[in-house]
Amino acid sequence: MAGDHAARPAFARWMSGTNEITRGFLAAGRIPGLINMAGGLPAPETYPVADLSAIAAQVVADHPAEALGYGPIEGLPALRQALAARLSRGDLRLTERNILVTSGGLSALDLLGKVLLDAGGVIAAQFPTYLGALDAWRPRMPAFRPFDPQTPGFDARAALAGAQFAYAVPNYSNPTGRVVGLPARRALVAAARATGTWLVEDDPYGTLHYDAPPLPRLIDLDATGAEEYDGPVVYLGTVSKELAPGLRLGWVAASAPMIEALTVAKQGSDLCTNGVTQLMAVQAFAQGLPERVGAQVRILYRDRRDALAAALAAHLADRFDWDVPSGGMFLWAVARDPGLDTDRLLAHAIAEGVTVTPSSVFDPSGALKAAIRINFTLNPPDRLAEGVRRLARAVAALERE
Amino acid sequence: MAGDHAARPAFARWMSGTNEITRGFLAAGRIPGLINMAGGLPAPETYPVADLSAIAAQVVADHPAEALGYGPIEGLPALRQALAARLSRGDLRLTERNILVTSGGLSALDLLGKVLLDAGGVIAAQFPTYLGALDAWRPRMPAFRPFDPQTPGFDARAALAGAQFAYAVPNYSNPTGRVVGLPARRALVAAARATGTWLVEDDPYGTLHYDAPPLPRLIDLDATGAEEYDGPVVYLGTVSKELAPGLRLGWVAASAPMIEALTVAKQGSDLCTNGVTQLMAVQAFAQGLPERVGAQVRILYRDRRDALAAALAAHLADRFDWDVPSGGMFLWAVARDPGLDTDRLLAHAIAEGVTVTPSSVFDPSGALKAAIRINFTLNPPDRLAEGVRRLARAVAALERE
Repeated sequence: MAGDHAARPAFARWMSGTNEITRGFLAAGRIPGLINMAGGLPAPETYPVADLSAIAAQVVADHPAEALGYGPIEGLPALRQALAARLSRGDLRLTERNILVTSGGLSALDLLGKVLLDAGGVIAAQFPTYLGALDAWRPRMPAFRPFDPQTPGFDARAALAGAQFAYAVPNYSNPTGRVVGLPARRALVAAARATGTWLVEDDPYGTLHYDAPPLPRLIDLDATGAEEYDGPVVYLGTVSKELAPGLRLGWVAASAPMIEALTVAKQGSDLCTNGVTQLMAVQAFAQGLPERVGAQVRILYRDRRDALAAALAAHLADRFDWDVPSGGMFLWAVARDPGLDTDRLLAHAIAEGVTVTPSSVFDPSGALKAAIRINFTLNPPDRLAEGVRRLARAVAALERE
Repeated sequence: MAGDHAARPAFARWMSGTNEITRGFLAAGRIPGLINMAGGLPAPETYPVADLSAIAAQVVADHPAEALGYGPIEGLPALRQALAARLSRGDLRLTERNILVTSGGLSALDLLGKVLLDAGGVIAAQFPTYLGALDAWRPRMPAFRPFDPQTPGFDARAALAGAQFAYAVPNYSNPTGRVVGLPARRALVAAARATGTWLVEDDPYGTLHYDAPPLPRLIDLDATGAEEYDGPVVYLGTVSKELAPGLRLGWVAASAPMIEALTVAKQGSDLCTNGVTQLMAVQAFAQGLPERVGAQVRILYRDRRDALAAALAAHLADRFDWDVPSGGMFLWAVARDPGLDTDRLLAHAIAEGVTVTPSSVFDPSGALKAAIRINFTLNPPDRLAEGVRRLARAVAALERE
């Protein structure tokens, strides 16, 4: 074939800076015997299979035009209304005009990049930063300005000034599992008001709290009691952790002008979100299914978190430091040796039959090398313990190199 | 609220050039009494509701991990294998590596733009051009170089040279309903081979043929009998016209390097496509459901096409010229008065209770004003006839202006 074809045009420039990690991890989930502690994967046994099977059949049969036809770009009115009601709280009052339905949480990040970024546009990003967000924004070729809201003396106004938007995961951050405290939350909201910078609050993990309910959301702290929210916070949520990720359903709650801009971007991205899935969410919400799933999931994941922490304490306490996370899906372990290269550790880990995520992929510059993200939601306690034993052997192998 | 917030950063530059037409048409579908002949909407009565309801329940119950969990970015192996088998034909041999599953046909266009376009990159586009493709590529800020493959003396090599990719809808094009003839198809494929330019073949309408089966696809004409297709054609398809658009399921068939590049872009766009929908497609294909739906749809739409053509002949033959399309969803009517402005006609049409699509939205420059695209698939014959009567009144009103 090569002989009778001319050379193809080059791919777009951003493609030269991509990472292979997410793809490799999704694939690693299918290597027999390997213990996958790298991905952000939920426990499949928590999916409400019988409920969702019945709901799927019902929505197609009862609402065929909405389930199977093209729907409004912004989302089906019934779902937008249900989300506006679910997300309104205290002084925060959301209407249908504040809601955009998206095809999963990552799609919302892609749309935000399209709407807010020209090449070189500045993103103020909580550091270390969710890998999927870096992937979503890479095609827009932005500049990243990292901030850590838990640093003593954190100057939120300096962090946000001049940026197109700020990006934060205040609840059980990916990758660190950490919580942004209330003073820092207030400072971020005040800075967004003062500078005008949009403040993107990504909250996929808010329902996964194991010790106490989460703090007020950034969008709550910006609420004024107005009839329809009109502030700078852009709040992102998903059913991936409340029901099941395969449904690919997320949402944005933001001011109406931001929703309108995102709708223009969605028109050219995927036209509208799957109708079957949208109606399944409406029905699941009406039945209280996320609340029932959430209660079970929190118990299951708390045990797994504790099992992971115990195994780390038994096998790796001399090599890593960590805080036990109070929610979410991840524990962040920082090597005591700042020269430890976790990119290289990963190769040894795979050889031992376990994966974790090296810190470099959460740094736009790739320079952060001495930490790992460990997922504790996918595997039961005995597998987590075995995974940590394998990881300890991988650390030993790296040190012998 | 305005008082205590600073001004927000500007939206990205491409947003200033967007169109509101698609959004307005999707909304117009819900104005009571209005006859929507503008959108590319299928007839909802053709959806195989009972089959899809049963299939939805079955796939969730039988394959919960695949239906409800994160899947591979490229698509579920069972669906990629089924698509490779369905699309292989004669000398065209496709493997799983040639297939990417996408969240609808528009998403494939978005991914192509991400992978192939830097700002100012050149697209050689069949003219007039599908509005959704223009929407999908606008955020990449490309330059368009139009071509009409049915022009006498069409020089395909000149059309393609130096472009990142060429875009064509050879079967029953949107918006014109026209077919690219076999000589022009061969010329496009030869030019793609000679220049190296990617040749995107968008084929959502191939199964909607009313008079005779369609001509060989561009990808068929480029096939060499090799074990795994490796040529420049990037073939796009969807279940939107074979089953139902609300499922939001499409696919790309292309060389493995192109599929790999698109997979990198999909990783940052929507991570993976809805698992429920993917498994529904596998099951629907196994049951022969698209073939059963297709046979019914072709009979229904042929009648509607004929009803539209008859009504136009009765009411608008002195104002417009058209060819009766041999397939697809649209009839393209060109005003005999080249000064007729169909953007202005649309306002009168809405006042009369009917919508059609003005030609300007299919021209990257917006200059094409004297034609309209009329959809004939959504409405039954009597509504089509009434719609044309309303349209004739709108033309008369415009002429009186």
